Amino acid sequence: FILKGSPVTADPPNVIIMLMDDMGWGDLGWNGEPSRETPNIDRLAAEGLTVPHMYTAAPLCSPSRASLLTGRLPIRNGFYSDNTHGMNAYTPQEIMGGIPDEEVLLPEALAARNYTSGLIGKWHLGHRDQYLPLKHGFHSWFGAPNCHFGPYSGITTPNIPVFRDDHMLGRYFKDFAIDKNNGVSNMTALFIQEAVEFIERESNKGPFFLFWTPDSIHAPTYSSPHVRGTSRRGRYGDAVKETDAGVGAIVEALRTQGVDNNTLIFFSSDNGAALVSKTEGGSNGPFLCGKQTTFEGGMRAPGIFWWPGVIPAGSVSYQVMTHMDLFSTVAQIAGAEIPSDRIIDGLPLYNSLIHPELEVLRPVFLYRGDRLMAVRKGSYKMHLWTFSTPTEEMERGINFCPGEEIPNLTTPIPTNHTDKPILFNIEVDPGEKYPISRFTQEYSKQVTELQQVVSDHETLLVPGEPMLNWCDNAVMHWSPPGCEALGDCINPPESNPYLCVWDH
Amino acid sequence: FILKGSPVTADPPNVIIMLMDDMGWGDLGWNGEPSRETPNIDRLAAEGLTVPHMYTAAPLCSPSRASLLTGRLPIRNGFYSDNTHGMNAYTPQEIMGGIPDEEVLLPEALAARNYTSGLIGKWHLGHRDQYLPLKHGFHSWFGAPNCHFGPYSGITTPNIPVFRDDHMLGRYFKDFAIDKNNGVSNMTALFIQEAVEFIERESNKGPFFLFWTPDSIHAPTYSSPHVRGTSRRGRYGDAVKETDAGVGAIVEALRTQGVDNNTLIFFSSDNGAALVSKTEGGSNGPFLCGKQTTFEGGMRAPGIFWWPGVIPAGSVSYQVMTHMDLFSTVAQIAGAEIPSDRIIDGLPLYNSLIHPELEVLRPVFLYRGDRLMAVRKGSYKMHLWTFSTPTEEMERGINFCPGEEIPNLTTPIPTNHTDKPILFNIEVDPGEKYPISRFTQEYSKQVTELQQVVSDHETLLVPGEPMLNWCDNAVMHWSPPGCEALGDCINPPESNPYLCVWDH
Ligand SMILES: [Ca+2]
Ligand SMILES: [Ca+2]
Repeated sequence: FILKGSPVTADPPNVIIMLMDDMGWGDLGWNGEPSRETPNIDRLAAEGLTVPHMYTAAPLCSPSRASLLTGRLPIRNGFYSDNTHGMNAYTPQEIMGGIPDEEVLLPEALAARNYTSGLIGKWHLGHRDQYLPLKHGFHSWFGAPNCHFGPYSGITTPNIPVFRDDHMLGRYFKDFAIDKNNGVSNMTALFIQEAVEFIERESNKGPFFLFWTPDSIHAPTYSSPHVRGTSRRGRYGDAVKETDAGVGAIVEALRTQGVDNNTLIFFSSDNGAALVSKTEGGSNGPFLCGKQTTFEGGMRAPGIFWWPGVIPAGSVSYQVMTHMDLFSTVAQIAGAEIPSDRIIDGLPLYNSLIHPELEVLRPVFLYRGDRLMAVRKGSYKMHLWTFSTPTEEMERGINFCPGEEIPNLTTPIPTNHTDKPILFNIEVDPGEKYPISRFTQEYSKQVTELQQVVSDHETLLVPGEPMLNWCDNAVMHWSPPGCEALGDCINPPESNPYLCVWDH
Repeated sequence: FILKGSPVTADPPNVIIMLMDDMGWGDLGWNGEPSRETPNIDRLAAEGLTVPHMYTAAPLCSPSRASLLTGRLPIRNGFYSDNTHGMNAYTPQEIMGGIPDEEVLLPEALAARNYTSGLIGKWHLGHRDQYLPLKHGFHSWFGAPNCHFGPYSGITTPNIPVFRDDHMLGRYFKDFAIDKNNGVSNMTALFIQEAVEFIERESNKGPFFLFWTPDSIHAPTYSSPHVRGTSRRGRYGDAVKETDAGVGAIVEALRTQGVDNNTLIFFSSDNGAALVSKTEGGSNGPFLCGKQTTFEGGMRAPGIFWWPGVIPAGSVSYQVMTHMDLFSTVAQIAGAEIPSDRIIDGLPLYNSLIHPELEVLRPVFLYRGDRLMAVRKGSYKMHLWTFSTPTEEMERGINFCPGEEIPNLTTPIPTNHTDKPILFNIEVDPGEKYPISRFTQEYSKQVTELQQVVSDHETLLVPGEPMLNWCDNAVMHWSPPGCEALGDCINPPESNPYLCVWDH
């Protein structure tokens, strides 16, 4: 379908999407984190709309972000691998692929409505020249194409570059300091400052779209010297606290510029907390397992919409939403065209934001790589496949579901339940602990209906070309654009493409 | 010590303690329950002080309540059994014991300051004549001495009576209907109405103390016909919703009477959610296990203080508190005498309520029956003994830690760790998943300090006479006071005292 023409308000609003990295649903005071160290995010929620049933499009960074920006499942936009069925893939340095040119990203859709789009933070949609943000609709960028992993020697692996727009400014660890051992870096402070300056610069022009994606909450976590050591929750909590302060600074900048009533903020996280990080990771509250899994802890994310005067303050919507709805809903709000030549998984849900009592009954499909693992619709979630931590990884101390074990559900190998799906009422049982008995009417009715939903989905599904199959050490960040001016180009090794290995 | 003389304000305030039954820490929207169905309790928190580190004095009803009202651990006030070491005991119908006369209960302490004290709801401090509320400081009572278990035939077991002051009005199931199969009863509506009428009646007189203890959230849960079926969380959620509406009605009554600025409300629950009830039980949020255990899920409870104009709105105190502090703190606020002839475990913490940034470093001792299981002080919790679900009960489908298993911690038999205590930083690791390694300086330092705390505690400890050792079917509710007028006296069987059996 086509939905275009008029924006929902006379002046299309500014839009800020704040996407945290690996922050858990339970990390907000608003969602019950006992130390309650997120006063600014909590205020956003108190002044806005809370969506407790918000899902990411994938249980890890790259595909989650690609889907939010395209409104399409990873299986459609290519952000998956089929090297091994049902395994998670992302964009490490050695990845060859990235976001295809054919995809329409939110900033590209908004450009037709004269939005100026800025990215501040991590990108993660591919780092080779043709995949960088300014090739895909963003007008400005400060941040890095990949996670702040390192430090590297520059011999077998180069350090990750930090970009200004289309050229590198320097590299993590080398030019942009991260003290990984002590968890100290001023990168979040820079991301906050850049966001405030972006708002100051753009507020008196046309509408803007700011995609704010600090990544300090992703391991190895870090925070600025003045924040480090101030949280009751340790190093992880410090990172959360500084990000929360950033939310406060951004809202304050909107107020100072007088555009707060004309700005929509959406706050969320790209996937559940990484429980593998143990005491240095976050909390998924009452939900099962975490990042890398299709249990609720892996894909349920904070969901806060804020737009003073338009979205009712202190409201709650029980709408089952996915990040892919952001693409369609923001386009709808801006009066931008939603592409009609492809399937868009996101729904335009502006009505649900201003009338929180409305609920559109719709399915959300939970994938792991190329495999449909589960589907959520209404109060029910049906697992077709289950998988937690591979035995080999468990033996190395990696555990995606630490302390949690549900028989037949948190299985150590990919386990096929399509003949006898596992069904939960996820509102009554958010922790996915008590499967509904197969010998009940409720089970028969819901499973029959959900199997039809899956069948309809799979009938129409034409998987996109997988972009995360091939790796090559030659494509690492040896010589990013701008390296010449900095004298920081490194000769790459010879090209030697190989099938990427995805462990889980 | 003696603390008496002046109340902290010119007019001692009214005090309302709202103590839910088996409501979990995670059942409040304020604490992250995804359906967010407690708007009135959440508003209380937003307008008041949240204490995330609030502990009950025991992981089940009777000892928890006895300790809140006396300010003393169950091991001191007699609300335990030593029939079998380390087992939980309470006051079923056949119990012979109850609250000793020697104990000073909060309403008795407040009587010296001319407080009128009312109990509306479940008592659970003993049901024989000498143990009833009007013998222990309360001026009025509407409710039952025990849980609403049943229905019973009246042959081997009588139904539980409902009292008005010192005489029975009728019995559960017989005169006060509970449709146990469908979860319907108007008892909560009655408890709400009684509370509003109490406030209307007492507001223009001297100060009042209202102990409001509806028990509909305790299995078998129930709610009024107009509420039943309205929660997204099922039958349990219905009970929570009706209780939440009661909180709203009570606050509204205070406002209508113009005494809201002169009333302190404390909201909590007597123990963690009973996870044995599965989808018909509540949520302990991020905490481990539930009712019956000394893990956080068993003894961490909601903690909200509300006193407009006195307690700063929207504040958080990280003070480690226990329900026993209510005794001392309310006495302090009222200017009532705190008994000096016995050890009072509660602290007078009025300063922590009005200056939430203050933190008094103090230990909280977590007992199961006569056994000290764990101690919490500052950020640390040290387990000396662990115990979750006995194997025999697990085989019958009972599980106090469903889906949760931490090696060496959730042990199926009482396990002695006093030689090598298990240590957690409970702020960094609220789920008790990651014991601090015994080979760290942090462990040595903290365990040494906590062992000293335990040693000091045990040196001074003189256990009270255990009141929960003896049972006798002859003491059941055969002929409560007032049964003659109702023609509802039943001849008791012959007295045959026996040692009560406590399974876990
Ligand atoms: Ca992430
Ligand atoms: Ca209880």
